[in-house]
Amino acid sequence: MPEYDFQLNLKNLFPAALWEHPDQEIVYREISRYQLKEFYDRVGRLASALSEIGVKPGDKVAVLDWDTNRYMEAYYAIPMMGAILHTVNIRYPPELIFYTMQHAEDKYVIVNDEFLPLLEKAANLFGFIKGWVIHSDTNKDVKTSLYNSYGYEDLMESQEPYDFPDLNENTTATIFYTSGTTGLPKGVTFTHRQLVLQATANALIGTKAPFHLNEKDVYMSLVPMFHVHSWTMPYFILLTGNKYVLPGRFDIKRILELVKKEHITYSFMVPSILYMILTHPEIESYAKYLDGWKVSVGGAALPKGLAQMAQKFGIYTIGGYGLSETCPVLTTSVFNRKVLDMKSEDERIDYRISTGLPLPFVNLRVVGTNGKDVAWDGSSIGEIIVRAPWLTKGYYKDEEKTAELWKDGWLHTGDLSVVDSLGYLHIVDREKDAIKSGGEFIPSLLLENIISLMPGSGEVAVVGKPDPKWGERPVVFLTRKGNLDAATVRGYLEEQVQLGRIQKWWIPDEIIFVDSMPKTSTNKIDKKELRKKL
Amino acid sequence: MPEYDFQLNLKNLFPAALWEHPDQEIVYREISRYQLKEFYDRVGRLASALSEIGVKPGDKVAVLDWDTNRYMEAYYAIPMMGAILHTVNIRYPPELIFYTMQHAEDKYVIVNDEFLPLLEKAANLFGFIKGWVIHSDTNKDVKTSLYNSYGYEDLMESQEPYDFPDLNENTTATIFYTSGTTGLPKGVTFTHRQLVLQATANALIGTKAPFHLNEKDVYMSLVPMFHVHSWTMPYFILLTGNKYVLPGRFDIKRILELVKKEHITYSFMVPSILYMILTHPEIESYAKYLDGWKVSVGGAALPKGLAQMAQKFGIYTIGGYGLSETCPVLTTSVFNRKVLDMKSEDERIDYRISTGLPLPFVNLRVVGTNGKDVAWDGSSIGEIIVRAPWLTKGYYKDEEKTAELWKDGWLHTGDLSVVDSLGYLHIVDREKDAIKSGGEFIPSLLLENIISLMPGSGEVAVVGKPDPKWGERPVVFLTRKGNLDAATVRGYLEEQVQLGRIQKWWIPDEIIFVDSMPKTSTNKIDKKELRKKL
Repeated sequence: MPEYDFQLNLKNLFPAALWEHPDQEIVYREISRYQLKEFYDRVGRLASALSEIGVKPGDKVAVLDWDTNRYMEAYYAIPMMGAILHTVNIRYPPELIFYTMQHAEDKYVIVNDEFLPLLEKAANLFGFIKGWVIHSDTNKDVKTSLYNSYGYEDLMESQEPYDFPDLNENTTATIFYTSGTTGLPKGVTFTHRQLVLQATANALIGTKAPFHLNEKDVYMSLVPMFHVHSWTMPYFILLTGNKYVLPGRFDIKRILELVKKEHITYSFMVPSILYMILTHPEIESYAKYLDGWKVSVGGAALPKGLAQMAQKFGIYTIGGYGLSETCPVLTTSVFNRKVLDMKSEDERIDYRISTGLPLPFVNLRVVGTNGKDVAWDGSSIGEIIVRAPWLTKGYYKDEEKTAELWKDGWLHTGDLSVVDSLGYLHIVDREKDAIKSGGEFIPSLLLENIISLMPGSGEVAVVGKPDPKWGERPVVFLTRKGNLDAATVRGYLEEQVQLGRIQKWWIPDEIIFVDSMPKTSTNKIDKKELRKKL
Repeated sequence: MPEYDFQLNLKNLFPAALWEHPDQEIVYREISRYQLKEFYDRVGRLASALSEIGVKPGDKVAVLDWDTNRYMEAYYAIPMMGAILHTVNIRYPPELIFYTMQHAEDKYVIVNDEFLPLLEKAANLFGFIKGWVIHSDTNKDVKTSLYNSYGYEDLMESQEPYDFPDLNENTTATIFYTSGTTGLPKGVTFTHRQLVLQATANALIGTKAPFHLNEKDVYMSLVPMFHVHSWTMPYFILLTGNKYVLPGRFDIKRILELVKKEHITYSFMVPSILYMILTHPEIESYAKYLDGWKVSVGGAALPKGLAQMAQKFGIYTIGGYGLSETCPVLTTSVFNRKVLDMKSEDERIDYRISTGLPLPFVNLRVVGTNGKDVAWDGSSIGEIIVRAPWLTKGYYKDEEKTAELWKDGWLHTGDLSVVDSLGYLHIVDREKDAIKSGGEFIPSLLLENIISLMPGSGEVAVVGKPDPKWGERPVVFLTRKGNLDAATVRGYLEEQVQLGRIQKWWIPDEIIFVDSMPKTSTNKIDKKELRKKL
């Protein structure tokens, strides 16, 4: 075989990127700013440093960090040397951090010094870790009680760039953990090929309405880097060549400052971050910098009320959908011809905030309990099942759950959706969050969306409460602005029944006002916690 | 292995495309106009029809056709059923058509009735063909003396769509023949994966300047479908969702009519087609429809004079480069930051018409005779060698030439290039067209470019003439407008020497005016023919 067998691995993204846009900027807050060619040099030297302390192909290397340039260096260096990057969920409680690192069999750790106290406290549990590489935003020497610890920059300083191997594309590149509603977190792994193809598809949709991205856009992912590869933005910027900004620890004021200073125009985030941005006390003083910011919202449904709040500032929200198990992106709300032909943005908004349409290469079905694809009628509910080039092969060391996930050769998302007459998906519930009342589903996400549109309502969550007669009945939790009361909410919902938007029996039995919503480690509303309160 | 092992095959492009843009239009002149969902149905029924007459996985099926919707149906149906599409070069003389079909071991043929006379005349030679599927733009019954012949539409009419197998992505999808300057044509093959990844990369550059394509663009490839997959435009429209127009037999007047009527905004073509368009007697009457037409020019260098002629009509030309062996695209003249920062289009044009920058995933080197990468100095000449996910594995049934092509694990293009200080490639010669005078290369493409800028000059070709003293000396052939004479050309070239643009010893010894240029079957200027004249 004289020909070269080209592999879709992360290393192979670099030659064209370094040739086309060696001066692409990568910015970490006000702390670091360099160009792609320097980034690549640092990636090579980081790999040499890791190799020197003993990291071998196949070893798992954990990272505990905010969204820094060093995290991004690790995103490439670790997989490209054939090791496996474990993006540790730093929002987990310490015992789960320990559990996931032990379950993954991590051997080395790269850690931001802000997380040292947490690790030092449990040092005796981490006997399986062979070395700790520590960095600090202050660039000062860090003192630690952890054995075998090294300074990130010290270790890199004298290194030559690593001679990266030409890895088979099916080599595992990453592992991270995803929380179920019950039980311990489950590990999912992804290969180089999966990352490259997911990144490619995410770059590809940039030509489509309403994205219409080009080389002048400035990207900043506000999905933390421990959360499903920050939706691969740190990878696909090598294909698009855009300036990329890393926000560090999420601080809304600082995010607003970065949007202003670095002229951010394209971001990923979950709805809660968008909500925090829009309700920040100083938001008005940033208004002119927010105009034109395109925001892909995923991780949870994008409520229409939130999209409208965003629109007041010229922030253009676009829905999307995926799971930890799917790398993650499966759908985005690009505009098809029928939506493009609509006369106004008011008509388009319902599609723009929807779950959207399948990404290129995604073979998606919505399957009813009868095993058949549901009609595109906007009301028939089915489970989303998928095939795509970037779905996890399964849960790490859990054959049973893997078999459930991949029943009949389709990845079962556990998400319930309808498809409207134009082909747009609208998720109505997580299967496990679904409320079944009198034998029928009550679509909690649809109810939440409608309540979010009511003046004075803030964040909204509808959950099921056990009911002796109906099995379950819906209860709504919400935050409020001003003096909204339960009677007003009930009156509003009765109007919606009159307007034919909801069924009378969907109206929640209880309306509970809260000061703030409990959140999961990835900043989604924690319905499990809410159900506990009932 | 419970998970689904997703393959990058052509079939897997359809689910997302059919979901997102089932109403995408595919237009063949005024003869056929339908939407993607109908196209897919026809692809399925064509495969069933082919299966019924005996086509099996691995069989080669030849197509002899102009650029029609039925050719495009064959582009998908044949590879998707596991058979191999042979895109026969209909511009070859009959004996080469026969040679390539026999060498490829074609078993079945789909043929436009316009090519029947050619085949019928040599019917006795085609004993290896088991069946002929004939179609006609007139849709009338076609009479033929060929045995085992079937009507395309008759055969399809009663079929159910084929149940396409889930092919391994490394299954061979296509074969076609490429002419060398000497010897018989050589066959190159491409796999499903190669087509899908080349199509993806071509779609991906749409976000970049100066392309900036979106869903409103209307695509028409003016690269014939027998010529390197029409540069994969018939494939990547499934990813982008754009309206696609097929021009049939190339007729410049008809092409201009299609640009006007279908509002074409994006095309591929070789320079000669662009030249024919721009010099068409009725061009002025189409001027307003040409404004804004983006044209990627490849297959041969894009002369600056031609780019400027095009610009007068608002046609925006963009350079690109590839070979039959490379699927084909390797580079395009996207704008990097330094070019974007230039003040005017006048400055940018030299980059826009250049060979360009490597496409995503392309690992490209320009290697001097010392085996080292040349400096980015605009003058050091080296051969372009490449690695990419879509390069042919080799020449069909020719191990020796395959080994030459893939020497040391890099595909050797045989093209000589410099790299300027901004990283743009500028091909200065085909290795085999290179003129070596007194031991030094004379860059014929650069000379041609400069002569093309002279008022009154038309198409230009510089070739080497054997010379007892210098080895070779350059001779220029050119077509002219008005009464340009040799003394004027010589005077102009001497000025260019004064301006430091060329070397004195590069000035051609002979200046030969011709009425028209000989062309190859792919409409490039045939330098082999010109050399014969000397």
